[in-house]
Amino acid sequence: MSMTLRELAERVGGEVVGDDTILLSGVAGIREATTGQLTFLSNPKYERYLATTAASAVVVSEAHRAEGAREGRSLLVASDPYDTFARAMEFLTDSETAGEAGVHDSAVVADSARLGRDVTVGANAVLMPDVSVGDGTKIRAGAHLGPGVSVGRDCVIHPGVALMAGCTIGDRVVIHAGSVVGSDGFGFAMAREGGHRKVPQVGTVVIEDDVEIGSNVCIDRATVGATRVGRGSKIDNLVQLGHNVVIGEDSVIVAQVGISGSTVVGDRAVIAGQAGLVGHIEIGDGAIIAAQAGVTKSIPAGETVSGYPARRHALSKVLGACYQELPALFKRVRALEEKLKRLEEED
Amino acid sequence: MSMTLRELAERVGGEVVGDDTILLSGVAGIREATTGQLTFLSNPKYERYLATTAASAVVVSEAHRAEGAREGRSLLVASDPYDTFARAMEFLTDSETAGEAGVHDSAVVADSARLGRDVTVGANAVLMPDVSVGDGTKIRAGAHLGPGVSVGRDCVIHPGVALMAGCTIGDRVVIHAGSVVGSDGFGFAMAREGGHRKVPQVGTVVIEDDVEIGSNVCIDRATVGATRVGRGSKIDNLVQLGHNVVIGEDSVIVAQVGISGSTVVGDRAVIAGQAGLVGHIEIGDGAIIAAQAGVTKSIPAGETVSGYPARRHALSKVLGACYQELPALFKRVRALEEKLKRLEEED
Amino acid sequence: MSMTLRELAERVGGEVVGDDTILLSGVAGIREATTGQLTFLSNPKYERYLATTAASAVVVSEAHRAEGAREGRSLLVASDPYDTFARAMEFLTDSETAGEAGVHDSAVVADSARLGRDVTVGANAVLMPDVSVGDGTKIRAGAHLGPGVSVGRDCVIHPGVALMAGCTIGDRVVIHAGSVVGSDGFGFAMAREGGHRKVPQVGTVVIEDDVEIGSNVCIDRATVGATRVGRGSKIDNLVQLGHNVVIGEDSVIVAQVGISGSTVVGDRAVIAGQAGLVGHIEIGDGAIIAAQAGVTKSIPAGETVSGYPARRHALSKVLGACYQELPALFKRVRALEEKLKRLEEED
Repeated sequence: MSMTLRELAERVGGEVVGDDTILLSGVAGIREATTGQLTFLSNPKYERYLATTAASAVVVSEAHRAEGAREGRSLLVASDPYDTFARAMEFLTDSETAGEAGVHDSAVVADSARLGRDVTVGANAVLMPDVSVGDGTKIRAGAHLGPGVSVGRDCVIHPGVALMAGCTIGDRVVIHAGSVVGSDGFGFAMAREGGHRKVPQVGTVVIEDDVEIGSNVCIDRATVGATRVGRGSKIDNLVQLGHNVVIGEDSVIVAQVGISGSTVVGDRAVIAGQAGLVGHIEIGDGAIIAAQAGVTKSIPAGETVSGYPARRHALSKVLGACYQELPALFKRVRALEEKLKRLEEED
Repeated sequence: MSMTLRELAERVGGEVVGDDTILLSGVAGIREATTGQLTFLSNPKYERYLATTAASAVVVSEAHRAEGAREGRSLLVASDPYDTFARAMEFLTDSETAGEAGVHDSAVVADSARLGRDVTVGANAVLMPDVSVGDGTKIRAGAHLGPGVSVGRDCVIHPGVALMAGCTIGDRVVIHAGSVVGSDGFGFAMAREGGHRKVPQVGTVVIEDDVEIGSNVCIDRATVGATRVGRGSKIDNLVQLGHNVVIGEDSVIVAQVGISGSTVVGDRAVIAGQAGLVGHIEIGDGAIIAAQAGVTKSIPAGETVSGYPARRHALSKVLGACYQELPALFKRVRALEEKLKRLEEED
Repeated sequence: MSMTLRELAERVGGEVVGDDTILLSGVAGIREATTGQLTFLSNPKYERYLATTAASAVVVSEAHRAEGAREGRSLLVASDPYDTFARAMEFLTDSETAGEAGVHDSAVVADSARLGRDVTVGANAVLMPDVSVGDGTKIRAGAHLGPGVSVGRDCVIHPGVALMAGCTIGDRVVIHAGSVVGSDGFGFAMAREGGHRKVPQVGTVVIEDDVEIGSNVCIDRATVGATRVGRGSKIDNLVQLGHNVVIGEDSVIVAQVGISGSTVVGDRAVIAGQAGLVGHIEIGDGAIIAAQAGVTKSIPAGETVSGYPARRHALSKVLGACYQELPALFKRVRALEEKLKRLEEED
């Protein structure tokens, strides 16, 4: 996919400065970019590369227009270079499907699957019966869509992702390689005859619009009802969401977090890396949970917690400072004991 | 797959009340079920849905027979509704293979692979030479069975699972999507010339009957001998079992637990989420390890431990209570110091 | 693959004792080995099996030459039996490709992909445009190499691995099943209109020579520049490396460790299981981070740290010992308070 700077500007906005016929066919960082690539300048510490980059064009803010023009650069001046560059990437790169629009010959697509317009299905992907895929969505090589799975518009389902039977994925959702959505929840009851008996997991998973899910994530289907990730929430790699977990909107869940069954997380919450949450609790809107915290009870909206068991962060810091002073405290108590002994002996 | 309520009762037991000719072709929770689906009532808090569910039939206990009949429901009365429903699921749903019995055209099955009766091999699954698969087992789309892998009867190997060369899987084992059984253990020795030298991992993995393994789990092959998961044990998502780990029977290992090489876990142990165990220790039968615990030494049978390093849970609770009181303790010591100072000055 | 003991010795070195025409076609541990297999004796506690093993030949050190000869064994006497055995494994086992040299019919290889000599591409593997694979490398079944991926010589890329667009893999690299290299880093900025806006991830991943990566590992591509794993480093299962992380040479990262974005780890560092590192810090050469540690700031070269937040291990041990004594300390303070009260009352 290649286009001129002018064609690109028509699609993503921004004002062209310099040669607008220059041909672009990819993107890269300002230090790595080569001829034919678009780059961007956003972080001030990279300003000096505006003079030296080999990129064919640079997205800049108004602040760098003059300097860029002086350097003879082809520029795309935009109010938010990051955002404009991000949207340009969609036109200039299509890395994982490179030239492979449509349904690859080797993909296995059930007759009853319904594909929208401009859908890409990669090599060896498998779409089971009654799958539905919205317009513009890319199913990468080797992805698996189980029976009855519904994926919305403009999604990217990366290689090796498994969407199990009946799960529902909204619009503009990205799911990175190796993630599993809709495996059975971990539900076992004691069997009368000893051992564990599987509790039927008949619910599903709903991923709402604009969610991004990292690599090798596990999101289990609900026992009954739905495990749900709300609109705009972002989930990092290797995260575990148990059955019937509900994540609100625009929340952020960092790598290796584990959330146990039926716990409900509100909107705009942040859960940092490796934190663990027990089941059946509620995390309020805007709550922040520190890395490696072990959350054992519900957290009110807006509160920041840390430690194990997780406590208000201010209290955790006080307790942590005390802990750090324990050797000194032991010495002080020893000194007190000795003084008191002397006092008693004097008496 | 569809059958009448009467045909279903002949397969899973229970007494039919109401119209036994009603046709069933799926299952769902009591709130979500629609016409043609079977549901069940087990949890008292869902009793009110017996009146309103759109399900075509409901599995109930004796306690709900009268009310169900009054509502004009088709019922399957069973001594254990959960269990009867779970077995009914196997006849009414076959979600991931939906209509795909036999070996899919796109599967790659070595000539020397031996398949039992009623085996399903999904699209793009790969069975290498000398694989053996027992009667009634389902190998889902894209699963990989390495050379010499043996899988027993009535197993389900989900999409994208990799069973590496020579591993042995028992009967009625379920392995969810993306899990890897039999990768090389993490064994390196210091090389004379500096750096690390790989220690050959020539052992295997044995998964016994009735084990269930979650998604994106890693179970490494033994250095020599076998890494082993005992009969009936249940392993949740994203768990790591190192080389030569041995798990006993009917143990439960929750998500994101890591168990280092050569550690032996007994029967009916429970290891809660994100706990970590060092290598070369023994966890006794029936021991319970709390979430996020860091277990650094062997645990006797029946003991409950928590914290880092893991201690008897009763002691952890005492220590945790002391920790919580540290700010108060510092104040008390400060007060003592001041009082003593005054006493000394008075002297 | 089978060869005589003499042919094997010509390839891996060592002196043959006994029948050098014996045919070998596999390897196993000394207890498990059967006729036709090569085994080795390195650990003294297995010495007694030299008399009883069913193996056709045994790699031993000089120390066991006499005893092996006495038992009538075919021996390969080597200065380092482990090392010789490890190299012999490469000739005698080719477990996952068993008889499948070349490119499997079902693999999907882009016309523009460049394959070296003696490359194996397994069933259903996908090589996108502009992929390059070096001599002797094995791409296992179902692996995915995105556009422009470069893999060096003598690598093994196991089933289901996803190498995303543009990543670079050195020589003699092993990547175990299910790992993902080069997914987008987890970068989101607050959007002006609320919610999160994806930060373009335009960098890549570079894996240097002689690296081994476990199963279901996630290594994210850089925002700009490269995420990098240095020569000879070894990474265990389920590890998370965020965008722009740099790992030095010969470092060891144990299972379930998480390293946040832009953190730099030196050479010969060891990070034990489930430890977590915040972003933008530096871990010096030879530093050791204990299991489950939570590292919140940079660590000097050679230092050992543990605990949460991670501190010098010697200090962690002192603090841990104090913690353990807290109940006793509370009693001592209570005793002091009572004594002092009595003293004050006496006054």
